[in-house]
Amino acid sequence: MIDSIVLVSGGMDSAVTAAIAAAKGPCAFLHVNYGQLTEDRELAAFTAIADFYKVKKRLVADIGYLRSVGGSALTDGRIKVPKGELGRKGVPVTYVPFRNAHLLSIAVSWAEVIGGRDIYIGAVEEDSSGYPDCRRAFFKAFEKAVALGAAARPAIRIRTPLIALHKAQIIRKGERLGAPLHLTWSCYKSSTLACGECDSCLLRLRGFKEAGVVDPIRYRRQRRSIY
Amino acid sequence: MIDSIVLVSGGMDSAVTAAIAAAKGPCAFLHVNYGQLTEDRELAAFTAIADFYKVKKRLVADIGYLRSVGGSALTDGRIKVPKGELGRKGVPVTYVPFRNAHLLSIAVSWAEVIGGRDIYIGAVEEDSSGYPDCRRAFFKAFEKAVALGAAARPAIRIRTPLIALHKAQIIRKGERLGAPLHLTWSCYKSSTLACGECDSCLLRLRGFKEAGVVDPIRYRRQRRSIY
Repeated sequence: MIDSIVLVSGGMDSAVTAAIAAAKGPCAFLHVNYGQLTEDRELAAFTAIADFYKVKKRLVADIGYLRSVGGSALTDGRIKVPKGELGRKGVPVTYVPFRNAHLLSIAVSWAEVIGGRDIYIGAVEEDSSGYPDCRRAFFKAFEKAVALGAAARPAIRIRTPLIALHKAQIIRKGERLGAPLHLTWSCYKSSTLACGECDSCLLRLRGFKEAGVVDPIRYRRQRRSIY
Repeated sequence: MIDSIVLVSGGMDSAVTAAIAAAKGPCAFLHVNYGQLTEDRELAAFTAIADFYKVKKRLVADIGYLRSVGGSALTDGRIKVPKGELGRKGVPVTYVPFRNAHLLSIAVSWAEVIGGRDIYIGAVEEDSSGYPDCRRAFFKAFEKAVALGAAARPAIRIRTPLIALHKAQIIRKGERLGAPLHLTWSCYKSSTLACGECDSCLLRLRGFKEAGVVDPIRYRRQRRSIY
């Protein structure tokens, strides 16, 4: 019996979310490939994290059609992943249009078949730099759509345990729970050595610095000051 | 400029929905392959309907992962498509878990990139034989999730012009609008000649009979009485 399905991208937030879910009961792990540039590296991180938690039920779903849809620097090679644009206003070019709805829909469909009342997603509103599908209000609304549009009873719930946390708090929580942060991958640009320059690397590095914890992964380049 | 995106499965309801949308302004057509048994035939119907309406913007998205998820007679060859179970209580075995959320999510992502304020889906609540993701309330809740989770402003709307109609009314509406019903495909079981026995064929045949219109497609087998 499965208590929950955890969306595990292979990033740090998903690893900490997995640690939270795994502490509560048996989980299934879902990884979604959406044609992002660093997919191979993220899938390797997913597998390592799933092995770490000895998760038996795993599903890797391919939504490569998001590459045909395009419109994001993460899925369209012609749109450049910006370097260090943290703090810029508006929706960033790394926004993959409505992506989280796809991830949740797959998790819900799977939960309908294998059971599992809770779906965990490591979305963060605070640090999310303007992604509309990372808002608390979106997840609440989506949960309602699930209650009405899916057959499972009691209704499947969407759990976002990190939604209100800052990166440093997530890192500290991960440390406390023994989450395998050394197995995670955050870089948007590179699949070999983290670039240390994209928004995602900057958020991660800043988080570790604020948390007073050493980031266990290596970087190709690391700015002296990341503020 | 595109006014709307229409989900076109290749079935009759989607062809009539396309006729409604096309009458209002320029459309883009989206077809989703989810690993259903009759996919090739449905894709051919999609292309024929798109050609009929001279639609330029087309997207075929593959969500074959629903076959890995399984749990439905339409995506798992081991679960038999029932013959003539109309009127049975509960969620039918042809329910593809939370499928409409996937279809809508893809349409919303595409609308974020190409524009289009309305998404048309030919869902029917009355005749839907118990699919939870065909309920009016689900679409309303999903539309709210879109308003909160997608970036487009004004917010993208979900249009379900057939939701309250019975099959016979849909057929009459299609006739009035000149929808290409002869190009559509409804059968759940066969890709060559419609079986005339599955739920979908029975609904279609009953609809034509009630509408007093001759079904322009051919069947392998047709029960004398379909009531």
